[in-house]
Amino acid sequence: MTSELILSRRDLDFILFDWLQVESLTQRPRFAGQDRFDYTSVLDVYEALATDLFAPHNKKNDSQEPEFDGERVTVNPEVGAALRAFAEAGLISAAFPPEWNGMSLPSTVERAGMAYLIAANAGTAGYAFLTIANANLLMAHGEREQVSPYIEAMAAGKCFGTMCLSEPQAGSSLADIRTRAVPTGDGRYRLFGNKMWISGGDHDISENIVHLVLAKIPDENGQLPAGVQGISLFTVPRKLVGADGQLGERNDVVLAGINHKMGYRGTVNCLLNFGEGRFRPEGEAGALGTLVGEPGKGLAYMFHMMNEARISVGLGAAALGYTGYLHALDYAKTRLQGRTRSERGLSAPQVPIIRHADVRRMLLAQKAYASGALALCLYAARLSDDIHSLENADAREEAHGLLDLLTPVVKSWSSQWGLVANDLAIQVHGGYGYTREYNVEQFYRDNRLNPIHEGTFGVQALDLLGRKTRANSGAALALLGNKLVDTVARAQAVPSLQRHADTLERAWVRIRAVTEELHGLDDPELQLANAAAYLEAFGHVVVGWLWLDQAIAAHALASGPNAHDFHHGKLAACDYFFGWEMPKVAGWLAVLEPVETTPLNMPEHWF
Amino acid sequence: MTSELILSRRDLDFILFDWLQVESLTQRPRFAGQDRFDYTSVLDVYEALATDLFAPHNKKNDSQEPEFDGERVTVNPEVGAALRAFAEAGLISAAFPPEWNGMSLPSTVERAGMAYLIAANAGTAGYAFLTIANANLLMAHGEREQVSPYIEAMAAGKCFGTMCLSEPQAGSSLADIRTRAVPTGDGRYRLFGNKMWISGGDHDISENIVHLVLAKIPDENGQLPAGVQGISLFTVPRKLVGADGQLGERNDVVLAGINHKMGYRGTVNCLLNFGEGRFRPEGEAGALGTLVGEPGKGLAYMFHMMNEARISVGLGAAALGYTGYLHALDYAKTRLQGRTRSERGLSAPQVPIIRHADVRRMLLAQKAYASGALALCLYAARLSDDIHSLENADAREEAHGLLDLLTPVVKSWSSQWGLVANDLAIQVHGGYGYTREYNVEQFYRDNRLNPIHEGTFGVQALDLLGRKTRANSGAALALLGNKLVDTVARAQAVPSLQRHADTLERAWVRIRAVTEELHGLDDPELQLANAAAYLEAFGHVVVGWLWLDQAIAAHALASGPNAHDFHHGKLAACDYFFGWEMPKVAGWLAVLEPVETTPLNMPEHWF
Repeated sequence: MTSELILSRRDLDFILFDWLQVESLTQRPRFAGQDRFDYTSVLDVYEALATDLFAPHNKKNDSQEPEFDGERVTVNPEVGAALRAFAEAGLISAAFPPEWNGMSLPSTVERAGMAYLIAANAGTAGYAFLTIANANLLMAHGEREQVSPYIEAMAAGKCFGTMCLSEPQAGSSLADIRTRAVPTGDGRYRLFGNKMWISGGDHDISENIVHLVLAKIPDENGQLPAGVQGISLFTVPRKLVGADGQLGERNDVVLAGINHKMGYRGTVNCLLNFGEGRFRPEGEAGALGTLVGEPGKGLAYMFHMMNEARISVGLGAAALGYTGYLHALDYAKTRLQGRTRSERGLSAPQVPIIRHADVRRMLLAQKAYASGALALCLYAARLSDDIHSLENADAREEAHGLLDLLTPVVKSWSSQWGLVANDLAIQVHGGYGYTREYNVEQFYRDNRLNPIHEGTFGVQALDLLGRKTRANSGAALALLGNKLVDTVARAQAVPSLQRHADTLERAWVRIRAVTEELHGLDDPELQLANAAAYLEAFGHVVVGWLWLDQAIAAHALASGPNAHDFHHGKLAACDYFFGWEMPKVAGWLAVLEPVETTPLNMPEHWF
Repeated sequence: MTSELILSRRDLDFILFDWLQVESLTQRPRFAGQDRFDYTSVLDVYEALATDLFAPHNKKNDSQEPEFDGERVTVNPEVGAALRAFAEAGLISAAFPPEWNGMSLPSTVERAGMAYLIAANAGTAGYAFLTIANANLLMAHGEREQVSPYIEAMAAGKCFGTMCLSEPQAGSSLADIRTRAVPTGDGRYRLFGNKMWISGGDHDISENIVHLVLAKIPDENGQLPAGVQGISLFTVPRKLVGADGQLGERNDVVLAGINHKMGYRGTVNCLLNFGEGRFRPEGEAGALGTLVGEPGKGLAYMFHMMNEARISVGLGAAALGYTGYLHALDYAKTRLQGRTRSERGLSAPQVPIIRHADVRRMLLAQKAYASGALALCLYAARLSDDIHSLENADAREEAHGLLDLLTPVVKSWSSQWGLVANDLAIQVHGGYGYTREYNVEQFYRDNRLNPIHEGTFGVQALDLLGRKTRANSGAALALLGNKLVDTVARAQAVPSLQRHADTLERAWVRIRAVTEELHGLDDPELQLANAAAYLEAFGHVVVGWLWLDQAIAAHALASGPNAHDFHHGKLAACDYFFGWEMPKVAGWLAVLEPVETTPLNMPEHWF
């Protein structure tokens, strides 16, 4: 597969350099000494790795999924080869700060590069994402001495990371976890419990694996503390690590089974038993682990990783949507079928299907969803860079609040509409798209995970309406409004964008009104009953804002010396979004003002 | 799998007997002597076959798909066993008229029964659907003497049928087919060409297969006639059939390959070469076939089968959506996770997820889509019964017009929203739904074919807006309007339905206005550019109408002596449809008044 079918470098360059002004980051101390050439060069490396080492075994990851023989799991050897090359290029630590020997690359650039990997091969890229997020959590919350053997090994690609949250009885409801961590007396803990849905939970790709495990420390009576306040976080390695950093014996973590998934098959997904005793002498069962930070703060620490993972989920969904779009575009330009009305003479040759208006509609929709989601995710990464590099503490705090507010949108809008893009890519391919001989149906299946993991769509909706829009008396919401209104004002100065600016402004006024109304309701059940519809409407308005903001940049370039068809395409995608997508907002708001109560009130026995 | 997870018999009974008044058909000569007990008994047989013989190998059909060794294809033996039992129960000919030794069952009842089979195992049921539709075409358009050996063999389950339309260069554009049929001089033809996407194209389940093949008869200069007017229809058996009905030698039809699909894997999908010569002595290549009806009318005849197949596609999509819904409902009632806001004490046990409003929202949506689509498809079958059994010719003509108008809606609304139902069934299951250990992801994959085959969504949209709404100066559209207005009037007499009646009436007024406006446009490209959005809006209004009509029936029953929770559930589904779905109509109409032209005008090089 050529890199042109994986991701649009031109679009990435536009988003990074023309729109998000990534080059301006080099003015800040954290990124001092870097320049645009550095960023371009490192993106070249991601692009080459994606094309040469990730994409070629994407189909194989799907058709030959990991196998578990009851003891160990076997993964395609190409997975390890690609990840080793990735680590050897220094890219696991690309965005690590200098004190951890990283390149200190802006997150915005690193994420753009990572989008290439996931578009090329979501299954293989999964290991890299998890490892980086694991390391970031440890750098933020672990004691340096405790975590540096892991981080060094991870940076070298010798140790991969996981996150172990869910248990059979505790999926979305983490308060109900039952894994227990019993102090050994030497400062360590022995863990006992079952964890499920563990991506990368066991494999032979890296020498070691470090699990970040949520567990509860029993009180003196052996009782587990209730609620999320009782959750602590532990590092539990697959193989014990000596003081010298040397790998020792197997820890008491046992692979109990793997899941056979609809897609995303390259990333092995495991059920792990901690403390089953299989790898320990009689009476010494328990997976040895070390507490991260303070007890009882495990969930807060884990949110460091989870928030990053949620942005990564959005990015992955955007990337899969994007590669599907590029495949559909390529197919539509080359597949001859039928004639347009104006070329109806049957002696005329058939035309490429891109000549049919409905095919162009499906392509524009994919472009609007996939490129829109990519812009949204990279905007979020840019906020993350602000958090780490702005000098002014208030400004950092603002960026933090805004990123928190947008995280549920980044996660769910991208995964919802990236998936719709993949669905349309199948539709453009017709019957061919439904076969495994083509790539697009796999993209759909891989992407279908994204609205589920790291908090389902429904969970994100509760987070947005119940927490994020209320946080700090709505400070982040107000800030978002200011930014949006600023975009509106700038767009109103561009005649061709005025109409869209007005539409966006009206939509925002309605969102604000609905938000206030909902927050004002006494009954919390009623308030949150239709949170999913709120998230739908809110997400579309946010992405509409970013499309309009991009259009302002594209418009300026389209009339400048470096004008390109691409800039007209950006403007058309913005037109499409305002013409076809923004009218949907009213449909979602219709069940919020007032709250439509059929689902809330439906008794179970009526179904 | 219990039959309760396959389809809701209670809902089928409601739709058939309480709403569509199927029993009243027994007053007509064609169905004389039948009674409700007959219908109930035959539905019992379908239900039992679905449960005992179709459902058990549904997963196996998916994980062990047909295999092609270069010569022959191997299909799971359970497929043949299920279909033999189906044929032995007399169900292939269930709706055949008496002159063809059928049961003369109303199509409405037969389709309801067939819904069981496809919900239980779409792949295996596919062979039955194709065979019945093939026989129906031959009964309608073939010479009795010519076709009766096939029809008798099909009724006995010894011969299965296919439809051979597409070719590599001619998918949606049938005018471009190149298969040639050369007269042999003895009244038969020899066919040469390649056909693709042939479901059931080759297998070892039945003794013989009869292909219905579109081909062109060359003129005296060997030129193929242009356009669809040049298309003729032929019966081409896999094995030649002697005058005595005995099977003779292999015909010159060669399996060239099979497709590996995203889903629907139980139905083998083939590339067939006609006239390759492999099974003929030197110089005698050509697949022997017989002309059906008159030359040049092949596409018109094929539309007999295609229209039936389009209803079947809708029905299959509805049935798959329905079984997914029942699986999700069962899961939601048993899976414990989290607590509702009012039960937040952490010492309280976790609740079944159906207690969460958002889960109920997803279940109601599935119910509204799947049961709504089932009602739509059975309403269409009821029209088909009217066409065949009404005494008054004008009334028959009206039913015909209405069915023609609704066919693109039946096909595409059901396949679009049945699929959304399957997507929501996955979402209700969370991570479990994404695994192949559960059933719902397969339902999605199986169902994903339905918006593609038998005319894509885009093709149906052109048919509806460009042809069906204009036919007979809009006679069918006017008739639909009368029926809808009648429902509105009856609903206005029910206080709890007045609001919905008003909504529906307003929506219909807008649909009529938009239709007129679009038909009045001079530029045919502009007129049809956003036909897909028109189909979306039109479909939702039609299904809204049928929900309201069902609600009137349910409301009457809910206050009668046989009142049941189920009737309240029907009413709630109607409330859901009007509360959550009807507001979407405005979003689709927004790109039609006036026609939004971004996709139409987008130059290809801007993408």
